[in-house]
Amino acid sequence: MGDNVNNPDASLAEAGERRIEWALRSMPVLRALGARFAETRPLDGLRIAACLHVTAETAVAVGVLRVGGAELALAASNPLSTQNDVAAALRSYGMEVHARAGVDRDTYYRHIHQALDIAPDIVLDDGCDLVNTLHTERTELLKGVTGGCEETTTGVIRLRQMAAEHALRFPVVAVNDTRTKRMFDNRYGTGQSTLDGVIRATNTLLAGRTVVIAGFGYCGRGVAERARGHGARVVVTEIDPVKALDASLQGYEVRTMAEAAPLGDLFITVTGNRDVIRAEHFIEMKDGAILANAGHFDIEIDVRALESLAEEVHLGVRPYTDEYLLPDSRRLLLLAEGRLVNLTAAEGHPAAVMDMSFSAQALAVAWLAEERVRLSPGVYDVPGEIDAEVARLKLAATGVSIDTLTPVQADYLRSWRFGS
Amino acid sequence: MGDNVNNPDASLAEAGERRIEWALRSMPVLRALGARFAETRPLDGLRIAACLHVTAETAVAVGVLRVGGAELALAASNPLSTQNDVAAALRSYGMEVHARAGVDRDTYYRHIHQALDIAPDIVLDDGCDLVNTLHTERTELLKGVTGGCEETTTGVIRLRQMAAEHALRFPVVAVNDTRTKRMFDNRYGTGQSTLDGVIRATNTLLAGRTVVIAGFGYCGRGVAERARGHGARVVVTEIDPVKALDASLQGYEVRTMAEAAPLGDLFITVTGNRDVIRAEHFIEMKDGAILANAGHFDIEIDVRALESLAEEVHLGVRPYTDEYLLPDSRRLLLLAEGRLVNLTAAEGHPAAVMDMSFSAQALAVAWLAEERVRLSPGVYDVPGEIDAEVARLKLAATGVSIDTLTPVQADYLRSWRFGS
Amino acid sequence: MGDNVNNPDASLAEAGERRIEWALRSMPVLRALGARFAETRPLDGLRIAACLHVTAETAVAVGVLRVGGAELALAASNPLSTQNDVAAALRSYGMEVHARAGVDRDTYYRHIHQALDIAPDIVLDDGCDLVNTLHTERTELLKGVTGGCEETTTGVIRLRQMAAEHALRFPVVAVNDTRTKRMFDNRYGTGQSTLDGVIRATNTLLAGRTVVIAGFGYCGRGVAERARGHGARVVVTEIDPVKALDASLQGYEVRTMAEAAPLGDLFITVTGNRDVIRAEHFIEMKDGAILANAGHFDIEIDVRALESLAEEVHLGVRPYTDEYLLPDSRRLLLLAEGRLVNLTAAEGHPAAVMDMSFSAQALAVAWLAEERVRLSPGVYDVPGEIDAEVARLKLAATGVSIDTLTPVQADYLRSWRFGS
Amino acid sequence: MGDNVNNPDASLAEAGERRIEWALRSMPVLRALGARFAETRPLDGLRIAACLHVTAETAVAVGVLRVGGAELALAASNPLSTQNDVAAALRSYGMEVHARAGVDRDTYYRHIHQALDIAPDIVLDDGCDLVNTLHTERTELLKGVTGGCEETTTGVIRLRQMAAEHALRFPVVAVNDTRTKRMFDNRYGTGQSTLDGVIRATNTLLAGRTVVIAGFGYCGRGVAERARGHGARVVVTEIDPVKALDASLQGYEVRTMAEAAPLGDLFITVTGNRDVIRAEHFIEMKDGAILANAGHFDIEIDVRALESLAEEVHLGVRPYTDEYLLPDSRRLLLLAEGRLVNLTAAEGHPAAVMDMSFSAQALAVAWLAEERVRLSPGVYDVPGEIDAEVARLKLAATGVSIDTLTPVQADYLRSWRFGS
Repeated sequence: MGDNVNNPDASLAEAGERRIEWALRSMPVLRALGARFAETRPLDGLRIAACLHVTAETAVAVGVLRVGGAELALAASNPLSTQNDVAAALRSYGMEVHARAGVDRDTYYRHIHQALDIAPDIVLDDGCDLVNTLHTERTELLKGVTGGCEETTTGVIRLRQMAAEHALRFPVVAVNDTRTKRMFDNRYGTGQSTLDGVIRATNTLLAGRTVVIAGFGYCGRGVAERARGHGARVVVTEIDPVKALDASLQGYEVRTMAEAAPLGDLFITVTGNRDVIRAEHFIEMKDGAILANAGHFDIEIDVRALESLAEEVHLGVRPYTDEYLLPDSRRLLLLAEGRLVNLTAAEGHPAAVMDMSFSAQALAVAWLAEERVRLSPGVYDVPGEIDAEVARLKLAATGVSIDTLTPVQADYLRSWRFGS
Repeated sequence: MGDNVNNPDASLAEAGERRIEWALRSMPVLRALGARFAETRPLDGLRIAACLHVTAETAVAVGVLRVGGAELALAASNPLSTQNDVAAALRSYGMEVHARAGVDRDTYYRHIHQALDIAPDIVLDDGCDLVNTLHTERTELLKGVTGGCEETTTGVIRLRQMAAEHALRFPVVAVNDTRTKRMFDNRYGTGQSTLDGVIRATNTLLAGRTVVIAGFGYCGRGVAERARGHGARVVVTEIDPVKALDASLQGYEVRTMAEAAPLGDLFITVTGNRDVIRAEHFIEMKDGAILANAGHFDIEIDVRALESLAEEVHLGVRPYTDEYLLPDSRRLLLLAEGRLVNLTAAEGHPAAVMDMSFSAQALAVAWLAEERVRLSPGVYDVPGEIDAEVARLKLAATGVSIDTLTPVQADYLRSWRFGS
Repeated sequence: MGDNVNNPDASLAEAGERRIEWALRSMPVLRALGARFAETRPLDGLRIAACLHVTAETAVAVGVLRVGGAELALAASNPLSTQNDVAAALRSYGMEVHARAGVDRDTYYRHIHQALDIAPDIVLDDGCDLVNTLHTERTELLKGVTGGCEETTTGVIRLRQMAAEHALRFPVVAVNDTRTKRMFDNRYGTGQSTLDGVIRATNTLLAGRTVVIAGFGYCGRGVAERARGHGARVVVTEIDPVKALDASLQGYEVRTMAEAAPLGDLFITVTGNRDVIRAEHFIEMKDGAILANAGHFDIEIDVRALESLAEEVHLGVRPYTDEYLLPDSRRLLLLAEGRLVNLTAAEGHPAAVMDMSFSAQALAVAWLAEERVRLSPGVYDVPGEIDAEVARLKLAATGVSIDTLTPVQADYLRSWRFGS
Repeated sequence: MGDNVNNPDASLAEAGERRIEWALRSMPVLRALGARFAETRPLDGLRIAACLHVTAETAVAVGVLRVGGAELALAASNPLSTQNDVAAALRSYGMEVHARAGVDRDTYYRHIHQALDIAPDIVLDDGCDLVNTLHTERTELLKGVTGGCEETTTGVIRLRQMAAEHALRFPVVAVNDTRTKRMFDNRYGTGQSTLDGVIRATNTLLAGRTVVIAGFGYCGRGVAERARGHGARVVVTEIDPVKALDASLQGYEVRTMAEAAPLGDLFITVTGNRDVIRAEHFIEMKDGAILANAGHFDIEIDVRALESLAEEVHLGVRPYTDEYLLPDSRRLLLLAEGRLVNLTAAEGHPAAVMDMSFSAQALAVAWLAEERVRLSPGVYDVPGEIDAEVARLKLAATGVSIDTLTPVQADYLRSWRFGS
């Protein structure tokens, strides 16, 4: 039996409802799309199997798809992020939800199978596990699937592999690669929530401290901006010379991790790589240095090496804070066991940024519903117009007006573009 | 009976100990003073009655006074801020502590009397209640008291009144008025912790939001800097034209509250005045506007007027967040019931800033111990050298070296200063 | 006769030499490439016809090509930007230079023809005039030309047109489209030099003033950052909702020009479009508002409309500053007649940023020299490795080290990229 | 004969008039005071002898005093800063002006005597030379002098000396010590104009460069903010631990000059002390390091030591830029011979900040005119209300409204202040 009917707990559903209500306040773009979809019903009659983080923000997003006419079955894309109260609330709204916090691997995959039982026309995925299951164990459903969306970088890479090997059997939109997601979700969402996690865990003063940030992609840039905004001296490490130069021209100090190790009061990794902070760095650090990770996986800080170095480990000297005592009695503080500090010690991305990512997804689904008959199997970029539409709705929701081209200007740009 | 012996709970004391240990890590100046005091014993044989917030940071501070030779009795200066576990830990160290979270007014004053029973040579006060009790109800002890310190603006004002009326019977140092406290504690401590409180309560994204800050003193400036550092558009309101002009020249928009009311997504009061946001402002605000206070008293936002305006109040839509539903269905969100949002929804000033304020206090007590015989009753400024010493120790603790004058430079400054 | 032999003025050449020397100091990447090219001689025996701005920075760049083995003939890409002293210095070094400040259109084209007389193997262009002349009037030379580089957006567009019509007869590298140029030259070069131009022209205080910036591309972002860095309140106008949203999330106010017109103390256009500030905006502006353009062409501010509105025009109330007196006696101040304020009232991009753009060009020429036999006619992107190499050399020149991947990390990234 | 009648040059006067007109545009507070003074005539019948920098901004200021009813005689307070065209314009308006650029010491003092010949009721001084002359060589005039104002720190110190020795014969207001001057003139005026001077002299790119700022007073803070605003990495040196700590908590790196010497690309001294950068520092600097001074005197950089170290000196490699070639062939670049770089290579403080300083002076003169009969000889602070009034007028001029206290708030503050 699935987890769909297992939680008749009304009070749990109520708590979830409150959470969803709260998220909804900060998601005006999805609200606007909801109103539009209720009228235009772009997904009428479509069955969707979705494998996503079961959180309040996701609940708002799938709600929009439902008012657009879709029938949905939802499984969790990660057993750790599932909010049971939200799942309960969604069920109380009549949605099929297969998710429970902390389930084991077998149950995780059973949930995906249960979501697929809906016999989807369209699939939504977050990491490619559902699409993978579909192509390997549920091939009987493939003929009915006419399109999909993928939310993550990792998932898109796996899909591109499949496409390259001619294994992918339907068109998939790479929702992850929108400007909306990279520029806003990564930069502003990760920036704020990462430092929020560090402060909740430690209550440390950032002003005047040296913060070493490993990685200067969109996320790293966001964290660097917020650290500077707290009055910290920011040191950046990078492996890409162009990003390193950009950091330098923005006034950040750029150094190798070996150079930065003895300088930092706080280290934040956000590289997408592994072992970014290693034994050779730990042994050079100051007493009391704080280590946090904001990258997707918990392998950026080499925690095993830290454990090997430590004479004693004191777990929980503060919430989400473990102390590693080195033989020379220096103490290093590891936050959230090296997992994503913004999701573990704080609450992850604010709903206002998820609003933009999920709105891009909703519009991508509607686009797919319309275009899928014309698309051959493969990985597709989100049409630029979807980014523009999300931004337009977001600006409108915050009361910001922007200019439009006069006819003379439009002509000028056209003529220029076409070289006359 | 007092609360000094009421808590034999060992596990509570242990939790308090961990908290104190944690604070101690970020208080290198007090640690340095502790080492110095242990050697020089500047307070040898002195009895001190102290009325202070009973928190981990205070525990570190009074610990330094004890290693300096003082015998201490501690009462709480505010029943709401008392950390029971810290009180328990202090008792387990053998200190006399009269404090328990949430006690009523009678118990509060009984605790002060119990602390005074030590028959103090020196008193430490935070709001002037202990000094006041001493001058009105415990006058038999006055002849033994040779000096005092006061931590707060409010207390200093009351003392100045007393001095003006020739009622003050011993010299008191206005620890509140140091540059160390104003420049660092108010600006950096309040700045970070206020926004921390707002984010913990709401998880709202600050980037791109309009934050209205009422008051541009040291605290307001600190909050404005951090709000800008989060990517917000900051609007400042002021009544002092010089401060308003300064805010304007720092690139902030300056407006009246009437003008700012319809613009703000988040309002933060930090003025020291009352009714800064009133009915006439609430009715102009956007749906979803958030109201928070970072001023000492909970009268800066006119909560009673808000209650009168509201059709419904939904308490606790998020932790520390109450929703006021206006007749036209706009919703205003009040954080922490209008109390200090940084102490209520977050953890107050980071230990690193309290380190500086309390170190100034410790040095002031030592100075008083030495000078009190030469001082007549009255209110005294902290000697400038104490500020310099605190800053010097703090810089040393963070590994920062600064320049010293060459003999030629010292001569030049001297000659210049004296006009030759 | 050309201008190559017309200036035997030794003192002019000396002044030019000093200017080139000065630029050279801030161009360490070109210096490093010069040393490398002197050894490897990647351009040995090649004849290059170049049509570029004849400035000190260009002189350094073409010097590198010469030590790489090339024989060069240089014509000016714009008669207004030619520095006669630099031209004289280049001639004194034995280079063929056809350029003189302020020549008419006929002479301008004659100079291009004279440069083409070298019978080039490779051509360098800045705006496509030389390539165009080659394809229309000097077709006899086409068979000898094996490749080209183009520096500007405009030129690249013209080339893409030609390629689309199968008219382009050799491969051309779009040097303009490098990350190095967009991220660094546009953002940091334009940012600093634009405000430099405004301040030199007006000596106005920017702190506390409202600066309206039209356009939030790379250049606009750079100008916005510098304006904010001067303490100004920055208002951004845009037509692209994604850029507008980005500006908003960075804390800038976003408005329409109609809304911004009455707010601004200083207006800076940097859009690439025409008539961005028009009659309808002028009439709403404050007395004393300053108007400046940082876009390529002088059509972003509708100067003709301003002239029509004005009752009187007072030219040169300050250097590069003309006053337009409106009928209601408000005064608008137009800088540099609406031309590029950073080139007119200041000195254009600092050499340190031109260093990166021209280094990308030099590496592109070397790449072209090697690859041209394998390339069919068409427009080619600069290989990503060239950007990385420029950034690497720049970092090295400024003493910045960055991390390199460990073998384990390289494996990890590879495996991840390829999905295993 | 004086210089008052020596310049009948009408075109010179016209140029000066244009300059004054330009300054007037950015001086709305003085304009407002002018209008008020024209009506109230607070200086009616008073004779004023003034010794001030003869610049366009001063011309506006003395104009206000004249419309207020004063008769003025003006001498230059520094022969280097005199703008001859402004002097000519003032004469053409009928004012007595004794000033010419570049005069020798004897003429300088003769001019002061000539100004004193007016037999002043009130004196205005900038450095105390006029007041000094009055007390030593023109004692016959002392009985008529009923008050004075002093603009500079140096002058105030000399006056305090005189007062201490009971030598000062009339009350003097220390206009220098207003919040208006320190907070605005020093911070925003010096901040912008210093970097303006450096950029005009060198056209160097500041983004990504390391700027070492010696001194973190109001001026140093202003320069640091602008340097950071240009994208530089800022290093601060200080001798005062409190200022050093403040710099550190604002995220600046704090170091000794010995530590900073090898790091800096640009050094700016603004300490008020001498020999801040010395031989021991020069020899550690990078090739190409730029040296500039923003302090009052040209002794902050030890230029003589630099000359001794240098093998060759190349004057004027750029305007206001001299190159010192060290034996190991490193090149150091000294701007403006170590004089105030903002006055030498740029145009000094923008008129908008002088507007505030001079308005404080004008109000101080009016206050003096009213109060002088009640004041005994001595040095007086500017009444706080004058600061407030200047700020109020400045805000009004820029269209900014601020809040006023409600009666309830005023009561609350009063009661709070008096402790009830």
